[in-house]
Amino acid sequence: MRTLDWVDGDILLVDQTSLPLDEVMLRVSTVEELTAAIKRMAVRGAMALGAAGALGVALAATRAADGGDVDEAVDAAATALIASRPTAVNLEWGVRRALAVRDGGAAAILAEALRVRDEDIAANRRLGERAADLLGDRGVVLTHCNAGSLAAVEWGSAVSGIRALHERGQLAGVLVCETRPLLQGSRLTAWELGRAGIPYHVIVDGAAAGLIASGRAGAAIVGADRVAANGDVANKVGTLSHALAARHAGIPFVVAAPESTIDPDTADGATIPIEERDAAEVLGFGETRAAPPAARALNPAFDITPAALVTAIVTESRTIETAQGEVPYPLEGVA
Amino acid sequence: MRTLDWVDGDILLVDQTSLPLDEVMLRVSTVEELTAAIKRMAVRGAMALGAAGALGVALAATRAADGGDVDEAVDAAATALIASRPTAVNLEWGVRRALAVRDGGAAAILAEALRVRDEDIAANRRLGERAADLLGDRGVVLTHCNAGSLAAVEWGSAVSGIRALHERGQLAGVLVCETRPLLQGSRLTAWELGRAGIPYHVIVDGAAAGLIASGRAGAAIVGADRVAANGDVANKVGTLSHALAARHAGIPFVVAAPESTIDPDTADGATIPIEERDAAEVLGFGETRAAPPAARALNPAFDITPAALVTAIVTESRTIETAQGEVPYPLEGVA
Repeated sequence: MRTLDWVDGDILLVDQTSLPLDEVMLRVSTVEELTAAIKRMAVRGAMALGAAGALGVALAATRAADGGDVDEAVDAAATALIASRPTAVNLEWGVRRALAVRDGGAAAILAEALRVRDEDIAANRRLGERAADLLGDRGVVLTHCNAGSLAAVEWGSAVSGIRALHERGQLAGVLVCETRPLLQGSRLTAWELGRAGIPYHVIVDGAAAGLIASGRAGAAIVGADRVAANGDVANKVGTLSHALAARHAGIPFVVAAPESTIDPDTADGATIPIEERDAAEVLGFGETRAAPPAARALNPAFDITPAALVTAIVTESRTIETAQGEVPYPLEGVA
Repeated sequence: MRTLDWVDGDILLVDQTSLPLDEVMLRVSTVEELTAAIKRMAVRGAMALGAAGALGVALAATRAADGGDVDEAVDAAATALIASRPTAVNLEWGVRRALAVRDGGAAAILAEALRVRDEDIAANRRLGERAADLLGDRGVVLTHCNAGSLAAVEWGSAVSGIRALHERGQLAGVLVCETRPLLQGSRLTAWELGRAGIPYHVIVDGAAAGLIASGRAGAAIVGADRVAANGDVANKVGTLSHALAARHAGIPFVVAAPESTIDPDTADGATIPIEERDAAEVLGFGETRAAPPAARALNPAFDITPAALVTAIVTESRTIETAQGEVPYPLEGVA
């Protein structure tokens, strides 16, 4: 099953906000529908957003080719798409992949967007094998948020590594951090692992440190939304605390992310903008309100894990492995 | 407002499971009702459980004094009360305070239980002043779970310190960790702080590390369910990750807890039993189900923060302050 795809001139995507209880497919025909889907996280995850960015520009171009101004439509789409999720470097990367071939017109843009999609599928599979090569048998592996096939076109990053370990018989189970506030772990990762027949337990995010400290996990593997040139990692809020716990316990903390996530133009984590989301996500969940009516909240969507806490960064084409968790600086993007 | 009290021969307590949306008072007339209330966390928190333990034995004794066997009733009550929340050392401590005067009969037991209640009120006030003396002006202070007046008869421990800082004009605000799975932070601490006019923001537990690392909190203060003789601290799950983040950022991590929480018979954190609670607490959020139907969960209620990560342990009678977070071993209980 593909998380998003190009079908008969439209983008078809799994509405991830309805999982795991309902499986709803969205047919997206305009850039406005796509940016709305991105903002409410119906489509999410670094790699899926990269493909969404490219396919979104293709959508605008092919629509305009039926009698509009392709250049104007492509520019407007690019601006709107990039603004819809400013921390996600892959979204912009996907948009720019499509823009790079704009001189060839709508047909060239669409062909490039489909190439982004197909490359993502192949790259994520390689990335997972590489992560499994690095980790070997660590018993139980902890993960955060959803860096699974739902975060990509297929396969995913961190979960691709977990799947590869499972196929090799080197996985005792997975600790899935629920990932408040939007619970991508308990909703999405748990759903994916269950479908794949991989044993797992969901835990609250705050339980990770104690379970890691008491030997209940042998490694942690997470995805990334952006990797800075010095190896600092922006990922879903809560990631830093797992990296600190892994270092405290002396277990590997591995970041699995496509090359497109590495942003050589971002010097370090301090310069990565952290998206602040709606307070309501924190003050309740779904229909359930937890806090008093007058309560206020802070809701940063990401945090920064310094490179010094990362054991290795694994991409589809290399493993940046480090002694003592020191990543060689600066990382240079391959793309 | 007292969280629990002795009124006309019964125990009257605030049902904390209904806060912050409803304020329900429970009138408890039997030990069975009390242990049920403890198990479902209608009454919770180290100091409140100490008073509940003593008042629970008094309840059994005064009931039996109307024609039953006081000794037998007291023994049965003590066993049932201690078993209802095995990690909470204060519960057992309160029970034993009452048992120590059993030779004086029901009247002596009740008098002692009321003394436990009154001492708690005075001690928590002193504890808060002492914590504020230690911290001084740190700007924003982070706290976890509810170590507030709702965790005591009045005042609380960590929140007593926060109140004292606020009274002194030395508090810029509070970051309240929501404290999954039962959300004592967003439900109880937020409610208390709001009533006290103290500015706060609720955050998801996973956001604490990133906010601390980026300078958004100047200190962390938490309560404790049990402090081992070597200074290791058992507290609500999630505490360890905040201690790691505080150490990483170089801000104080202070444990505020009554002397009765220090357990000289527990050598270190590794020997503290960690209560495993119902998976359903993790797999949903209030009435809203999050995980797939077949999902399993681990739900440890506590974690252990090693003494080396604790800047100071503050009680009502002393401040065990340490250089580099090294607590002098062993701690000796005063009680």
